[in-house]
Amino acid sequence: MKAPELGIRVGLHPHGKRNSMADLGVKVGHSTIIEGDDIRTGVTVLLPPVKNPYRERLFSATFVMNGFSKPIGFVQVDELGYIETPLALTNTLSVYTVASAVVRHMIELNPDLKSVSPVVMECNDSYLNDIRKMVVRDDHYFEAVKNAKLDFEEGSVGAGTGMSAFEFKGGIGSSSRVVEIGGEEYTVASLVLANFGRREDLTIAGVPVGLELKDYPGRGTSGRGSVSMVVATNAPLTARQLRRLGKRAVVGLSRTGGYAYHGSGDVVLAFSTAQTVPLDKEAHLLSFLPDNALSPLFRAAAEATEEAIINALLQARTVEGNGHVRYALPVDRLVEIMERYGRVERA
Amino acid sequence: MKAPELGIRVGLHPHGKRNSMADLGVKVGHSTIIEGDDIRTGVTVLLPPVKNPYRERLFSATFVMNGFSKPIGFVQVDELGYIETPLALTNTLSVYTVASAVVRHMIELNPDLKSVSPVVMECNDSYLNDIRKMVVRDDHYFEAVKNAKLDFEEGSVGAGTGMSAFEFKGGIGSSSRVVEIGGEEYTVASLVLANFGRREDLTIAGVPVGLELKDYPGRGTSGRGSVSMVVATNAPLTARQLRRLGKRAVVGLSRTGGYAYHGSGDVVLAFSTAQTVPLDKEAHLLSFLPDNALSPLFRAAAEATEEAIINALLQARTVEGNGHVRYALPVDRLVEIMERYGRVERA
Amino acid sequence: MKAPELGIRVGLHPHGKRNSMADLGVKVGHSTIIEGDDIRTGVTVLLPPVKNPYRERLFSATFVMNGFSKPIGFVQVDELGYIETPLALTNTLSVYTVASAVVRHMIELNPDLKSVSPVVMECNDSYLNDIRKMVVRDDHYFEAVKNAKLDFEEGSVGAGTGMSAFEFKGGIGSSSRVVEIGGEEYTVASLVLANFGRREDLTIAGVPVGLELKDYPGRGTSGRGSVSMVVATNAPLTARQLRRLGKRAVVGLSRTGGYAYHGSGDVVLAFSTAQTVPLDKEAHLLSFLPDNALSPLFRAAAEATEEAIINALLQARTVEGNGHVRYALPVDRLVEIMERYGRVERA
Amino acid sequence: MKAPELGIRVGLHPHGKRNSMADLGVKVGHSTIIEGDDIRTGVTVLLPPVKNPYRERLFSATFVMNGFSKPIGFVQVDELGYIETPLALTNTLSVYTVASAVVRHMIELNPDLKSVSPVVMECNDSYLNDIRKMVVRDDHYFEAVKNAKLDFEEGSVGAGTGMSAFEFKGGIGSSSRVVEIGGEEYTVASLVLANFGRREDLTIAGVPVGLELKDYPGRGTSGRGSVSMVVATNAPLTARQLRRLGKRAVVGLSRTGGYAYHGSGDVVLAFSTAQTVPLDKEAHLLSFLPDNALSPLFRAAAEATEEAIINALLQARTVEGNGHVRYALPVDRLVEIMERYGRVERA
Repeated sequence: MKAPELGIRVGLHPHGKRNSMADLGVKVGHSTIIEGDDIRTGVTVLLPPVKNPYRERLFSATFVMNGFSKPIGFVQVDELGYIETPLALTNTLSVYTVASAVVRHMIELNPDLKSVSPVVMECNDSYLNDIRKMVVRDDHYFEAVKNAKLDFEEGSVGAGTGMSAFEFKGGIGSSSRVVEIGGEEYTVASLVLANFGRREDLTIAGVPVGLELKDYPGRGTSGRGSVSMVVATNAPLTARQLRRLGKRAVVGLSRTGGYAYHGSGDVVLAFSTAQTVPLDKEAHLLSFLPDNALSPLFRAAAEATEEAIINALLQARTVEGNGHVRYALPVDRLVEIMERYGRVERA
Repeated sequence: MKAPELGIRVGLHPHGKRNSMADLGVKVGHSTIIEGDDIRTGVTVLLPPVKNPYRERLFSATFVMNGFSKPIGFVQVDELGYIETPLALTNTLSVYTVASAVVRHMIELNPDLKSVSPVVMECNDSYLNDIRKMVVRDDHYFEAVKNAKLDFEEGSVGAGTGMSAFEFKGGIGSSSRVVEIGGEEYTVASLVLANFGRREDLTIAGVPVGLELKDYPGRGTSGRGSVSMVVATNAPLTARQLRRLGKRAVVGLSRTGGYAYHGSGDVVLAFSTAQTVPLDKEAHLLSFLPDNALSPLFRAAAEATEEAIINALLQARTVEGNGHVRYALPVDRLVEIMERYGRVERA
Repeated sequence: MKAPELGIRVGLHPHGKRNSMADLGVKVGHSTIIEGDDIRTGVTVLLPPVKNPYRERLFSATFVMNGFSKPIGFVQVDELGYIETPLALTNTLSVYTVASAVVRHMIELNPDLKSVSPVVMECNDSYLNDIRKMVVRDDHYFEAVKNAKLDFEEGSVGAGTGMSAFEFKGGIGSSSRVVEIGGEEYTVASLVLANFGRREDLTIAGVPVGLELKDYPGRGTSGRGSVSMVVATNAPLTARQLRRLGKRAVVGLSRTGGYAYHGSGDVVLAFSTAQTVPLDKEAHLLSFLPDNALSPLFRAAAEATEEAIINALLQARTVEGNGHVRYALPVDRLVEIMERYGRVERA
Repeated sequence: MKAPELGIRVGLHPHGKRNSMADLGVKVGHSTIIEGDDIRTGVTVLLPPVKNPYRERLFSATFVMNGFSKPIGFVQVDELGYIETPLALTNTLSVYTVASAVVRHMIELNPDLKSVSPVVMECNDSYLNDIRKMVVRDDHYFEAVKNAKLDFEEGSVGAGTGMSAFEFKGGIGSSSRVVEIGGEEYTVASLVLANFGRREDLTIAGVPVGLELKDYPGRGTSGRGSVSMVVATNAPLTARQLRRLGKRAVVGLSRTGGYAYHGSGDVVLAFSTAQTVPLDKEAHLLSFLPDNALSPLFRAAAEATEEAIINALLQARTVEGNGHVRYALPVDRLVEIMERYGRVERA
């Protein structure tokens, strides 16, 4: 269940049909790894809506709110302004293994490839997962690719399996927004791997839910939070404009109670599905929105990210692992609180 | 009246004695320029707690959330990590005049000075002020310096005279927070020049005040918003750490309804009053906090900035000028709304 | 006399017809200020080849090699990717006055203008100029604008009047290069305000001219060097690509003996004359070269900047002022040295 | 044989005792992988002079001249200002495998480690190496660590095995410089993985060696050059200052004929061995040089990097692989050319 189904409204713009990355044709796949008492981790993959991402490159940009993080590939995206692989998410110590798997994937697809720059982001799930065992393997990435679909699961799956947010169970969440600019409709979607925040900081649609639930059981933290955010749009934007768009994810993050604490690596990858980057050496005509048209997209990126984080919490299930337990956010308590603060909308 | 006096609590940390920049010994001075029907502008100056800022340089850093802005001096602060002048705020087209005045001020104080880098920030007050007349002169800067004091005014004064926020009257606001780290108390203070936001975005302590007041009269915008934020602390931080601190001002901004729209130049200058930068060419011992101690300061920077923005609104008075009127945020209505949402604390 | 006329070849690409900024239609104007014994300064203006730079904005980017510098307007260029005014150069303490003059200029041209971001760069001429007197006024900027022409002077003129390079007389220099990409010819031009370097560092076309001339009279330095570099092209590039192009100016700088010493503020502004930035709020088709076509432009930017610095030295005249004298680089000695090292080409 | 032994002097500062990274106590180890006709690659490791780099973190910074590169760990170094692992170099597609090995290495050393950020840099050796086979394994990293010593080999070894520079054989090169600041001696050392440049660009001590040798056999390029540069010093510098230092590596690079062409990922990692980063949460006294003392270090970084690149060429041997051959720079021809241009110094 996502926020709108509970009558919780985040922001002013309407969401897209699926209220997720899928509204841009992005397929998402998971490999969930649960072994014994101590392994709760996984891999999540986002497949941009192209056949071969290495040939059909998409304009892209990064933003680092807090660089206590190990994202792979940001240096090249910053320089060249595009992505050339699927995007992947996993745990902190496994980004390198997954990046290697992305390279193998692209090598298989492209017989002439001799250089490629995967983009993989991470959060640290060591509260519920014995991260030192480094159990993620190539196959997990390929399994996630195979499973990718528009109608994807959120919550405690894939890379989200062992993640925590606000001392509740966190994980994967997504949301989208639709805006109109110059008579055209554009969609902005956000997908987050949420693994950050102290209980008392949790804010939902402005309501201090975390303070209200500060005595709810299951508190405790490894001090190693993070949130990796992906923002996508079908608006035609340059890399510079996508960097502006990606920055607004942090506005949404802040509104949920994200303070970008020292230990929380908060990073954003933004891309546009509108057109591919030309590969031959001539001047090309490309379509771009002017900067003074971007404000609705900026608000949409903030709103979609704010709701994506809430959706991660709403869809996560209670998980035990590695000697700890993370409870799902209690939805009945949440609804009761939201009503008390006058913030539940009836259809 | 500031937020706490209305029972509105922003964040978790207690504020300092004066709940302003003054808690760090920073004196603030204003020159308010009101002429005829169309001039509503001014200059605000922050004097760091040193005798000669050109000789007693303070560690400093910048962060640019939205660079549709004309801050003076950021390139050098980024490179060298210090400020060497008072800080000043004024309107968009007058930053250069004020920067020249700062240079003259430092020339007078320092007979050997042949290079100096002023830091001046701006917002665009053209809704209430005929900014094209460029009325700000050197004297206004010097008047603001002369007037500087710990017990300074906020609201529609100095650089804040013609500013708007959330389609209410904006201007100067300040707040502070006190935190404990390793047994030591440190203070973080924020001062903002608030001139941004659409009515419906205004959020106070999580409450959608702007939506509640969306039909309150006086709406309208020039589309040229901005917010300039100064964050200071007495914690001993390097320039790199101050950049981290300054970034968290954006968390506070976001929580008030700041979306960093295209036209809103949102920038931060952070500095530490803890120690001066050595000027001779030998290795020096300096005191610094390690990064893993910074989270309380980060939260404090967010909280102080969030409240500083609210305080700007609360202390601004209704101003007419240049064919427009900006109403002060109606405090009685605000209190009524906050109570309805259960967000007023009784002492 | 420029380098090619002496048989000194810098790089591999041919230069354009005028071997200067003028090859892109950029007009350059100077206001040279010489007063009494101690004032040797001025203003130089670059007029992009458009009628109204505030309406016909050109894609642009910055690069800061050493930010001990006071460039005006870089924050906004970084964010929005365009310039919207003429570019100006002057001494360190006068950038603010000149920026104010640019604002007035744009206000006159544009009755609706309420915000504008001038770009002004500087070097410190205090060795030959009593910079503390701050003699530059608005009129000097307007005089430079009026004087602007394609067939402009270089050397000890305008902003270059009091500048020094490698303990010789420095100042304004320009050069251009022509390259072919995908069957199309493109031009890259560089204009520098050269005011940096120690005598022994001077390298011309690889020859250690500075070491050879280390006993030539007139040594001495204020320790306040800098170089401001403008790189322009008619190739259609995005702001991100222009940043890449501008970075290569530093390659040329390095090859002349520029080490970006602590006190030397070394900054670059790059822009493209190929097309203007759309101003209305719809998606637009724009022409851009792909990144994999850029290498010839990168080399051209390095070569043009390397030669522009040499040209500044070659065209500067001996100047006395403020109790010091700066000798022009002795051209006969230079030719003799270049011949000895086998580096003079005969036509 | 390094440059000084041939009478080729690069720069003005004297080199250290070993003229390499070893002058800072940094041990370097290689794993050279040569298999059949088509595998010519390897791993090189730099061990900072501490027992456990995860506990004894060193201040560090990055600079990206051209981000068409896949360096691992730069985001975290930029944020936190330190390295916490050995540094490693390898081929483009193997950085992820080597980063995983570094993680395992640190896990073994540190029983409590749950997060760690390796720094691995790369160049693309696909001209001589069938890079698509991804032959590098964990063991190669551990072998390089085991082999690390002060008296390390340079040229076609380790990560340098298959690299090319200026269409000659490239690879690993190192050099150092000693400077005096305020009565104290400090060392700056550079180690490069050189794999960039077109033949005609090669410049040695200002002499156009590449043009002279443009008809020397073995030309040809994959268009995938790069150079990864490590700059270290025992001067006590902050992360911000180390970034300034690292930038000057690009000055040295430029002087050898490095133009940072589109396809050449040119990146720098700088660190200081002077002191470790405190790990507990109290304010600490640390020693730092002021910025105005840094110019000699800046020149030293440029000089050491310039010579390190030359040393890579001088020490590389002719290598055949993957259907291509890369000849070593012919030293006798070089000496003849340098003498002709008057650039050989006799002891």
